[in-house]
Formats: sequence, C-alpha cells, structure tokens
Amino acid sequence: MTDIRRDGFLGGRLTLAQPAHGYRAGADAVMLAAACPAQSGQSVLELGCGAGVALICLGHRVAGLSLTGLELQESYAVLARDNAAASGLAANIVTGDLTRMPTDLRAQSFDHVIANPPYFLGGTVAPDSGRGTARHEDAPLSQWIETGLRRLRPGGWLTVIHRAERLGVILATLGGLAGEITILPISARKGRDAGRVIVLSRKGARAPLRLLYPFIMHEKPSHLTDAEDLTPAAHAVLRDGAPLNLRDPQFPMTM
Amino acid sequence: MTDIRRDGFLGGRLTLAQPAHGYRAGADAVMLAAACPAQSGQSVLELGCGAGVALICLGHRVAGLSLTGLELQESYAVLARDNAAASGLAANIVTGDLTRMPTDLRAQSFDHVIANPPYFLGGTVAPDSGRGTARHEDAPLSQWIETGLRRLRPGGWLTVIHRAERLGVILATLGGLAGEITILPISARKGRDAGRVIVLSRKGARAPLRLLYPFIMHEKPSHLTDAEDLTPAAHAVLRDGAPLNLRDPQFPMTM
Repeated sequence: MTDIRRDGFLGGRLTLAQPAHGYRAGADAVMLAAACPAQSGQSVLELGCGAGVALICLGHRVAGLSLTGLELQESYAVLARDNAAASGLAANIVTGDLTRMPTDLRAQSFDHVIANPPYFLGGTVAPDSGRGTARHEDAPLSQWIETGLRRLRPGGWLTVIHRAERLGVILATLGGLAGEITILPISARKGRDAGRVIVLSRKGARAPLRLLYPFIMHEKPSHLTDAEDLTPAAHAVLRDGAPLNLRDPQFPMTM
Repeated sequence: MTDIRRDGFLGGRLTLAQPAHGYRAGADAVMLAAACPAQSGQSVLELGCGAGVALICLGHRVAGLSLTGLELQESYAVLARDNAAASGLAANIVTGDLTRMPTDLRAQSFDHVIANPPYFLGGTVAPDSGRGTARHEDAPLSQWIETGLRRLRPGGWLTVIHRAERLGVILATLGGLAGEITILPISARKGRDAGRVIVLSRKGARAPLRLLYPFIMHEKPSHLTDAEDLTPAAHAVLRDGAPLNLRDPQFPMTM
C-alpha cells in the first residue's frame, strides 16, 4: 500500500492518512465516533478500525479514553498507529482477526465497543485476488455484533453503524443479549428512506427499544450543486465534532 | 358486553359499534388498513379482528376483497359481523384462537394477512377475572407473526402495526421467513421517537429491508389545545381513507 492520501476530518481539526484506493473512511466513521457515549476514563475497542478514523475522532472529542483498535490488515493497522500518534493520541492498535480474537484482547473487557462493519460481504473478493489477508472481511455481520458483545463488560455499550437494510440482522443478533437499544436512522435528505442506521445497545440490559426520529445529512431536497449543503446538525457533527447524544430523551430536537 | 358505543371512522364515512369499555380500535386500526396493499379480487385475513374496524376500513377502501377475520372473543366477533353488515360488506368472521387455528382457516391461504396484536401482553389478566376466554390474548407477538406468515400464500403480504419498541421481536421473527420488509415509523410529532411502526413484509421474498422516513400524525410541536391538528397526510388517511402506499419508492413524499 504505497499510495496514501491525507484527508481532513472534523473541519480540518484532524488530518488522517488513508489509502488512496481501497476502503477509505468518511462520514460514517465520524458519525460512529459521535454516537459512542464514552466518557473520560473509560475504555473503547473498535472492531475493524481500518486507518483509525473513528477511534481517533472519538479520542479527539473525549479526553482520557483508553483506545484499542483491532484491524485485520497490517497495512491499515500501520496507518492507524501513525494517525493516532500524529493526532497526539495513545492507541493500542492490534493486528488480528475478529473471528480469532487475539489472546491479549480476549483477556480484556471494555466499557465500549464500536464498529462500522464492511458493507459488502462475501463472494466479492476472490481467494486468490491478492487480498488473501482480507478473506475474513466476509465474517457475517452477526459475528461482528456477537464478537463486540463478548468484549464488553456487563452494562457496556455497543455502537454500530451500518446500512439501514441490515437492521433486521442487527436486531435479531442483539435479541436476548443486549437491550436499551436505540436506533438512529440516517437519511440523506428529508423524506428519504434511511440509508444508514446507528444502533446503540447495552449488554445485558432490558430497557425497551427506541426508534429515533431520523438524522438528516443534507439540507436541499436534491443534489443540485457541488456546494456543501449539510444540515446544521450534520455540520455540527462532521465539521465541529459535536456528539450525537442518542440517549438524551430530547434527541435529536436538541441538535 | 352490554355497553356499546358507536364511533365514526374515515371522517364519518363509517360508523362502527365498539364496546364502551375494554379494547376499542382507533387510529392504529385505520393506519393498518391503509397500509395493506390489497387489490380488488384478493383475499385478506385479519388476526384478532376485534370489532372489525381495520378489516372494514380496508373493505371500504378496496372493493371486491374477500374479507376474513379471526377473533378470540365471541362478543367482539358478533360486533364485527354486525359492523360489516351495517357497512354493506360481506366478511367471514370466525370465532377462534390463533394459537389453535380453526380447521377451516387452516385449510386456506390468503393474499394478505393484517394484524394489530395486543400491545400489553401476559400477566395483566387474572385467569379468573371473568375474561377467561381472553387468556390466549397473551400469545407472544412472535406467535402472531409466525401464524400470520403460515396463513399466507407464497409471495403474500403481512402487514402489522405495533409499538415501535417491539421492532426487534418483529424483525427477528420475520428473519428468514419473509423479506422485502418495509418499516414505516409513526411519530406523533416531528422530531419525536416513533411510537408505532407498521411493518410490511412478503412471505419468502429476499429483497432488502427499507426503513422509511417517519409518518407524522400531528402538526403542532406539542399538544396545546383540544383542536384537531392532524398533518395533511394523517388527515388524508384517517379522515379521507387514503392509502399508505409503502411500496411506492417515493413514499412518503407523495402524500
């Protein structure tokens, strides 16, 4: 992976290196970081941290977190380490496979687990395509959720962002294992289907599920120009690093 | 059940008898009827039809349906028969228990099944409370869904309305059995959590889930006066009998 690009995040507050080609984190990673209710002094594990964008955005917003990332591909793990160091954050980036959890992580439990699992799974990468080390990217979504829950302490929080169409799998996997589920639908524009969902849940909890009013990314009814048209709420999160306080009973009216 | 009240539905187009006390259908039943994509000539089964409000609203909107209702309590079944007749609709109302499907219904399959399962289940009705025949109202929500799917022909549609907090159970139960799932969150007001969800799904289908933009019932930001403040879309459904075309890719922007 020689072709590296530096992308600005949080309105330029962070500059993070990512591969110019292949998977590159964007708004979803920033939204994920914004939705994690971690507080200073707590521990956070990101499954599949890639170049570390979500973990670093979270560490930038909340000081005093213990940050751990698990990443399958060494080339991304190296970027995550460099990005964390360049951002002034200590982060333990472990190269390893979530389907065969490295021993030192298996011995730990965390206050928070966050994940932005791959959106397109299975069958798209040939075993001999030169991406052999990525073969376990096709771990099913349910396995990401189950693995995340296993690494949480009782009462710990799992925050996941994914395509809205996978909501059924996410909820079915959480069933019985986690409660206090809060679903934030994310719509590109007012009136549109949710494209993404953020699902926050608490290990072993029993409180009822909440389906929140959608978070809307863009102001205008359609994509008319190249000018940025983020809603004030989306601007606050993506450019100013504001949190998504999903557990606030008034959310999203307070944004 | 001697104390009967006559309630207007669809802007007074229908006047239906319901018990003055105990369970009385309202907006949820009308929304359920509006969301069922039945077309003239097709068959519809309602599980737990009560006094028949949803079934009759649906029959009123779409001419030429074959209407069947299953109701546990004979007193409600009698009302449903009377209400259908008074509305000029032929409906086969069967008194029976969905957990022990009557033989003649078990022999049939339907194009559509609709249901508005009880919202508060189990433990609230003492076995000796004089509502002995209602004991199976505490069939779990999953059983309502499974039973509905069993009564559908392959490719038939299940339409369910329930409290939003039960979305996890609904999706987990549909998983693997139905697809093309379309979720309509219903919020009392803009910015509020969904209070209800309508979940439309198709037996044996595989198309991806859609999480729609919420349907909003009331116009004003809070309940200020007793004056009706339905949104134009809610007025169209509840007062004018308009359908909720959930499968329209533009829904709800077309309302």
